[in-house]
Amino acid sequence: MKNILLIGCGLLGSSLLRRIHKKKIARKIFVYEKSKKNISKIKKLKLPGTIVKRLNDSVLKSQLIIFCTPMSEYKKLILKINKDLTKRHIITDIGSSKLESKAVVKKSLKKDISWTSSHPIAGSEVSGPENGKHNLFENKWCVLIKDKKTNLKHLNFLNSFWKKMGSKVVIMNSEKHDKIFSITSHLPHLIAYNLVKSAQDFEKKQKYSLIKYSAGGLRDFSRIAASNEIMWRDIFFNNKRNISKAIDLFIKNLNEFKKDINSKNDKSIIKKLIQTKKVRSKIIKLKQDIDKPDFGRN
Amino acid sequence: MKNILLIGCGLLGSSLLRRIHKKKIARKIFVYEKSKKNISKIKKLKLPGTIVKRLNDSVLKSQLIIFCTPMSEYKKLILKINKDLTKRHIITDIGSSKLESKAVVKKSLKKDISWTSSHPIAGSEVSGPENGKHNLFENKWCVLIKDKKTNLKHLNFLNSFWKKMGSKVVIMNSEKHDKIFSITSHLPHLIAYNLVKSAQDFEKKQKYSLIKYSAGGLRDFSRIAASNEIMWRDIFFNNKRNISKAIDLFIKNLNEFKKDINSKNDKSIIKKLIQTKKVRSKIIKLKQDIDKPDFGRN
Repeated sequence: MKNILLIGCGLLGSSLLRRIHKKKIARKIFVYEKSKKNISKIKKLKLPGTIVKRLNDSVLKSQLIIFCTPMSEYKKLILKINKDLTKRHIITDIGSSKLESKAVVKKSLKKDISWTSSHPIAGSEVSGPENGKHNLFENKWCVLIKDKKTNLKHLNFLNSFWKKMGSKVVIMNSEKHDKIFSITSHLPHLIAYNLVKSAQDFEKKQKYSLIKYSAGGLRDFSRIAASNEIMWRDIFFNNKRNISKAIDLFIKNLNEFKKDINSKNDKSIIKKLIQTKKVRSKIIKLKQDIDKPDFGRN
Repeated sequence: MKNILLIGCGLLGSSLLRRIHKKKIARKIFVYEKSKKNISKIKKLKLPGTIVKRLNDSVLKSQLIIFCTPMSEYKKLILKINKDLTKRHIITDIGSSKLESKAVVKKSLKKDISWTSSHPIAGSEVSGPENGKHNLFENKWCVLIKDKKTNLKHLNFLNSFWKKMGSKVVIMNSEKHDKIFSITSHLPHLIAYNLVKSAQDFEKKQKYSLIKYSAGGLRDFSRIAASNEIMWRDIFFNNKRNISKAIDLFIKNLNEFKKDINSKNDKSIIKKLIQTKKVRSKIIKLKQDIDKPDFGRN
């Protein structure tokens, strides 16, 4: 490959940067980052690549352009680079929801230019270039989006690109993607934020200090409730229809569970608890988590 | 101390057994365990202590009796040992909720015998004697319950006992205990079970395979949703009043959050996400979790 332009260099962008450099996949890597704080971190860390102040020149010089910014930045950035885009550009992004950004891209991107969306499942509660690592994508899933208008050449290209990043690639359409991740990722994050908020509300009301007793469960949730707020606001807004449905399903289950405990419905509760236990074994078998009590943290 | 009787030898009981032996705190340790499977595990593991088939003799010979069984076993066991209990016995348990078991104890325990309740915050998603460890309580909180009728001598004794187990001791009454842990432990577990159940419901309905994409958040919840079902049924039933209130508060927050994302209330969402983020730093500062992304599991 010739040159790659990374737009945004936080946790994921800087991980791509490290990996692309390490594997010598590109001749040149251009890095565009609007945050001055991040730029000074990148310099201090002596990360590879060339930091560019303007997009136009590096767009012209690059074959692959990867958007690694929050999704709410896409529109502005697309309008900035539109005039320099040609059919030879392969463009992708790493956003966590797809249908809404597809609409934004359709509306803003110059005609006849393809956008082929990616979603590496490799987030974390930490952000910023200082937390990136070359093996962030290693053995993690990367979803590639294939919709009706997807450019198959670009899809193939990105398939092999993400494999070089260490990912296992799976292909699905935007609709299916947004449904699946509303349950496996967006709802868990939303729940985590709201559980922590409920604990804060309770603390205020009861004037008890709670947080120091968080080792009984709450601390697990606090981790993902510490995730980047801009990124997650964008996800919640962009996938709001599926997430709302997921919330409704979840509240329905909560209310049934509440009924079960209030009526001491032994059979129903035990059945539910045994059923959900099986999922953990499945997750470990699928190598989606480590096989150690407490995530091996103690 | 003279002799200690452990009633129940699963994760916590066997951890106490290991620790008491290692620190040479008792002359003799008696272990009563009703599960044949656990007994054969204990033998295979060559754990210290003497396994007893009947309670009476070891009750007579012991100074300290620790209930390490699910709370639903207390009544039956108390009725079994009542006739051999004397005022010199110090009795405690390690149950995760207090008000309801206090009522059970009051109803079943022989007159003039004291019961002084403990709750070491040291659970895990694994159970059984094979998962116990001598340092399970190290630097973890242990709550000692002090109610109106608590025997202060026994309380002092247990305070020093748990410190020998490695715990940091905090004293509070049953009511406060059950309120605090309904939020920091019981609600998180209940939510985890119901989130995993919602994912299962969704899988069935949509016929999508979800679990393999659980690294985006769901896997964190699946860990505590794998906890022992008998123990957790008992907790949910015993603390149902506080837990129901906690569910209501949480659902209220969920519904408000849903409104916020559907109306794209930027200000409110960002404020909430930033607020909850602070709790994570607090938890880490209080050494209630480790300071590594992803719990250091990757």
